[in-house]
Amino acid sequence: MRRPIITLTTDFGSRDPYAAEMKAVIVGISPNATIVDITHQVDKFNISMGAYILASACPYFPEGTVHAAVVDPGVGTKRRPIIVQTERSCFVGPDNGLLALAARSIGGKMHIYSITNREFMLPSVSNTFHGRDIFAPAAAHLANGRRPADLGKEIHQMISPGFMRTIRRKDAFEGQVIHIDDFGNIITNFTAKQLQTMKIKDEARLKIGEVKQTLKLCKAYGEVKKRQPLAIIGSSNLLEISVNQDSAASKFNVQVGNKISIFCQ
Amino acid sequence: MRRPIITLTTDFGSRDPYAAEMKAVIVGISPNATIVDITHQVDKFNISMGAYILASACPYFPEGTVHAAVVDPGVGTKRRPIIVQTERSCFVGPDNGLLALAARSIGGKMHIYSITNREFMLPSVSNTFHGRDIFAPAAAHLANGRRPADLGKEIHQMISPGFMRTIRRKDAFEGQVIHIDDFGNIITNFTAKQLQTMKIKDEARLKIGEVKQTLKLCKAYGEVKKRQPLAIIGSSNLLEISVNQDSAASKFNVQVGNKISIFCQ
Amino acid sequence: MRRPIITLTTDFGSRDPYAAEMKAVIVGISPNATIVDITHQVDKFNISMGAYILASACPYFPEGTVHAAVVDPGVGTKRRPIIVQTERSCFVGPDNGLLALAARSIGGKMHIYSITNREFMLPSVSNTFHGRDIFAPAAAHLANGRRPADLGKEIHQMISPGFMRTIRRKDAFEGQVIHIDDFGNIITNFTAKQLQTMKIKDEARLKIGEVKQTLKLCKAYGEVKKRQPLAIIGSSNLLEISVNQDSAASKFNVQVGNKISIFCQ
Repeated sequence: MRRPIITLTTDFGSRDPYAAEMKAVIVGISPNATIVDITHQVDKFNISMGAYILASACPYFPEGTVHAAVVDPGVGTKRRPIIVQTERSCFVGPDNGLLALAARSIGGKMHIYSITNREFMLPSVSNTFHGRDIFAPAAAHLANGRRPADLGKEIHQMISPGFMRTIRRKDAFEGQVIHIDDFGNIITNFTAKQLQTMKIKDEARLKIGEVKQTLKLCKAYGEVKKRQPLAIIGSSNLLEISVNQDSAASKFNVQVGNKISIFCQ
Repeated sequence: MRRPIITLTTDFGSRDPYAAEMKAVIVGISPNATIVDITHQVDKFNISMGAYILASACPYFPEGTVHAAVVDPGVGTKRRPIIVQTERSCFVGPDNGLLALAARSIGGKMHIYSITNREFMLPSVSNTFHGRDIFAPAAAHLANGRRPADLGKEIHQMISPGFMRTIRRKDAFEGQVIHIDDFGNIITNFTAKQLQTMKIKDEARLKIGEVKQTLKLCKAYGEVKKRQPLAIIGSSNLLEISVNQDSAASKFNVQVGNKISIFCQ
Repeated sequence: MRRPIITLTTDFGSRDPYAAEMKAVIVGISPNATIVDITHQVDKFNISMGAYILASACPYFPEGTVHAAVVDPGVGTKRRPIIVQTERSCFVGPDNGLLALAARSIGGKMHIYSITNREFMLPSVSNTFHGRDIFAPAAAHLANGRRPADLGKEIHQMISPGFMRTIRRKDAFEGQVIHIDDFGNIITNFTAKQLQTMKIKDEARLKIGEVKQTLKLCKAYGEVKKRQPLAIIGSSNLLEISVNQDSAASKFNVQVGNKISIFCQ
């Protein structure tokens, strides 16, 4: 039988024992699971960054993968622990928008469950660390073949993140920076499809933070000279603004959440 | 047969090849082992931080797990490489206090062995990297079912770390900060049990570094307003001082090793 | 059957989803493979650092290991994706010098292949991320037992890195700093063998950056006092300059690429 796969996406960092405690619980329940870290370096409490990274990585995993994600400023309050079952994958985490982008990007029907059955939690559930006490055991039981309905009741909505919305202004479409990667690439919330609709092909007239700039829409960083900016459809089908072998975020002085406008052709 | 589990806790960081060299040796000797990183981000040479993180994570791993830990400023000197066998788990590392806290937290009888049998080391043992040359092969052989006594003679004591001691003063108990996590939570060396003995239930009068402050003893961060401080029994059963969605270490300006006092009720 | 081993060495960092996307592709194709991260923290675009780290770690892995490495400033340009097959291991990555040091350090005959067969790539190959679209699937298929010749034609040379060269001057040999590890140890490109040829045994007269200093050639850091400098043959058989429990790079104020001279005896 194929070994089940469980991924982890958290803001726990790699200094603290928290990610390892989740893995400890998982290997105890599902010893044959392959655990893959997506990242533990989400900025603390930054739900949109976690949502983006999970959504970027999850399409590349095989069918049946269980994705556990924990960026959870509301741990210990009334926010619900949920499972989102899509046709391809299963997502486990807090109901705060973190799972929605990934679950939707996969498409197809989805079912949402509230995790309430204490039989599938650690015997003692802390108020500070549901990653270890609720989400890790839930993910491991799902990887072992348990159905989401065994862990809790189906519910009919989850909290929806606002950060993927773009707005039509008079002469431009307005979106935002949703992530800046370690290379300084600026990831926007404009999809390749939206650019097609806007009939943008060879170049795009942009406002990036405070800077207006027309950028060539490239297929490779090397199409412009070293240290020159470019626009590119990145590996997640989103518009990225990059600088060949340098940091676009430094050049344009932008941060996550800043506005990006694309002027109409 | 269940796959053996080996954990790694080191101060090697994740830039250098050192942790990977340990894993290379392990997969060569015990190809079916599941290797779980607890952390490689212990502050360089900080034995108490390594000891705390190992002790925090190890109770969550299944019985039979082999824990290898390397924070080893004395490598190449006379400090001994040891194995500590408890009823639940096995610990491998230098005899400098690193393993003691974890081994004791598990409770029950323990046996200590000095690793001396060169048959279970790499053919050439360097003076700078016992993690790869002694501890990784020892852990892998133990995971394969070798008994600690095959690797060396039983000895009757190991070096004991001092950082878990708290002192009774006239009107207060004095402990210290033993770790600050990535969220800025201040982990103290007061246990939940000690607080019970001190009859502390709803709130605690504390001196945190230079600041006197009475804090509510909460069950969840969300019980106080955003950016407000609280006391909480953390996921490792130790008293933690936190700030809801902010850094307690910054607020109280403390570092690992600073004093924490709890005034008597 | 023994589980195949695949290692990863990249400059992707651990915040971004890139390394996880490579692993997602690998577990999809080769579900039984054990994936070991060598590092994802190579300095961005620093081919020599990546080459050094890969060369340091790879000798410790078992025969048959497949090493995928991606430090790839030329992605999307004409630089070729290659496989280097040695007698012990297989290396997959861009043809930019990254694999050469490791492949040579292993010794014996080697065969080089250009990866061109699209059947072994992801269906859609991006211009920005060959790690996921070409190198990860190639590594996974090789781990599954595919021969390099199935993936592309044999070619007869690869790009050779210059950073291992040392030069004979009038009264000294001149080399350079090729890596500085997290402990601040300075790794030079002088091999233990070269030091033997130079008849250097007990001490070495060095120029480290701008500082002339005679250092004891030690077998353990502890042979000198705390905070004193020493020379040592490190765990990769290269001359390292260290400071006992402190940073040599700070003390001598050097960076990767700076000159190191050894004066003749």
